[in-house]
Amino acid sequence: MILNDYLMSGNGYKIRLLLSMLGQSFEYVERDIMKGETRTPEYLEKINPNGKIPALVLDDGRVLAESNAILGYLAEGTNFIPHDRFERAEMMGWLFFEQYDHEPNVAVLISWYEIKGLPDNADIFEPMKQAGAKRALDLMERRLSDHNWLVGEALTIADISLYAYTHRAELGKISLQPYPGIRAWLARIEALPGYVPITWTP
Amino acid sequence: MILNDYLMSGNGYKIRLLLSMLGQSFEYVERDIMKGETRTPEYLEKINPNGKIPALVLDDGRVLAESNAILGYLAEGTNFIPHDRFERAEMMGWLFFEQYDHEPNVAVLISWYEIKGLPDNADIFEPMKQAGAKRALDLMERRLSDHNWLVGEALTIADISLYAYTHRAELGKISLQPYPGIRAWLARIEALPGYVPITWTP
Ligand SMILES: N[C@@H](CCC(=O)N[C@@H](CS)C(=O)NCC(=O)O)C(=O)O
Ligand SMILES: N[C@@H](CCC(=O)N[C@@H](CS)C(=O)NCC(=O)O)C(=O)O
Repeated sequence: MILNDYLMSGNGYKIRLLLSMLGQSFEYVERDIMKGETRTPEYLEKINPNGKIPALVLDDGRVLAESNAILGYLAEGTNFIPHDRFERAEMMGWLFFEQYDHEPNVAVLISWYEIKGLPDNADIFEPMKQAGAKRALDLMERRLSDHNWLVGEALTIADISLYAYTHRAELGKISLQPYPGIRAWLARIEALPGYVPITWTP
Repeated sequence: MILNDYLMSGNGYKIRLLLSMLGQSFEYVERDIMKGETRTPEYLEKINPNGKIPALVLDDGRVLAESNAILGYLAEGTNFIPHDRFERAEMMGWLFFEQYDHEPNVAVLISWYEIKGLPDNADIFEPMKQAGAKRALDLMERRLSDHNWLVGEALTIADISLYAYTHRAELGKISLQPYPGIRAWLARIEALPGYVPITWTP
């Protein structure tokens, strides 16, 4: 298995974190998104026509894109996915929330300050993204203020997915101070066997 | 089962279309999002803390949110989800693409012209959303120019999900003229048993 990834990408880190927790070996290939290495004709043709990492190349050569879909593929049949049908749907709900309400705000803010610099019209976009990030974290806190995990009684891939950018929210100038439930949950994940930081590669 | 929905919402329509194709009965409750009916303290407390439709109330009172998670819940064990593990992951990939790359562009443009009117700074947002919509449709066309369905050889919930806003793209001033594969796929879906238009309620 070959993971096409970019070290500082939370979307890529989700996959690395799960693979480490599963104890599954893989090959890591860095694609520098800042140099357009996911937009070359060859990458678009052979790896991901959507021009993004992460993309997982299976041993038979077939390729999967979309971080949360890759998590689902790798976790199938493991305890990272609930056995109960309703809990599975709740987990999927959090994964879609991550892509719709959380990542486009939290991840984008982090990438501006850490990687890309502020975009044109930042005076318009920045408060919009900050407000969106706050709404997303408020919703997570509502659950995590009195539960250990986002779904049921154990870690699922929803926790892994939302951990990826949440634990770096402060790099996006989003304070985690108002969110004790989230902070306790971050620490809970960091104490698990197989936990690795975002800088980890195999 | 009670579906909290808004007639002109593509996210809600996804669920109505699948339920109709499954021949499953349900109760429809209209929530006027333009009057803030998903933002009342009661709705936030009892139905969806994220303040949105669609939200499906099961017969035992438990509630599911997120359109694509609800599709997955309802379709579990049916032919609307592939039996093959890899195809299932590809289907999930399209569902995440729908929420990340497609809906935030195509649906938002439609809602501006059809429901809400243009936002402040439309001169900045409109070209951005049009470019994003074009990229999303280009990616769908790449698949649909030589395949009948997004995944494998049969309709899945990925087709239902992406149909919801794609078939109304022109209301968002997005031309479907350059996309013969997409247009043939739309017609294929509209010819299926149980197909109903977005204006349908049970
Ligand atoms: N919805 C996708 C988003 C992936 C994504 O946005 N990847 C970024 C890095 S975090 C990327 O590859 N950007 C490079 C580019 O778009 O050229 C997922 O969850 O995998
Ligand atoms: N990610 C959600 C998005 C749902 C959504 O955006 N719903 C809109 C209507 S299409 C809504 O309820 N808006 C009312 C509001 O936000 O107050 C899903 O797929 O269900």
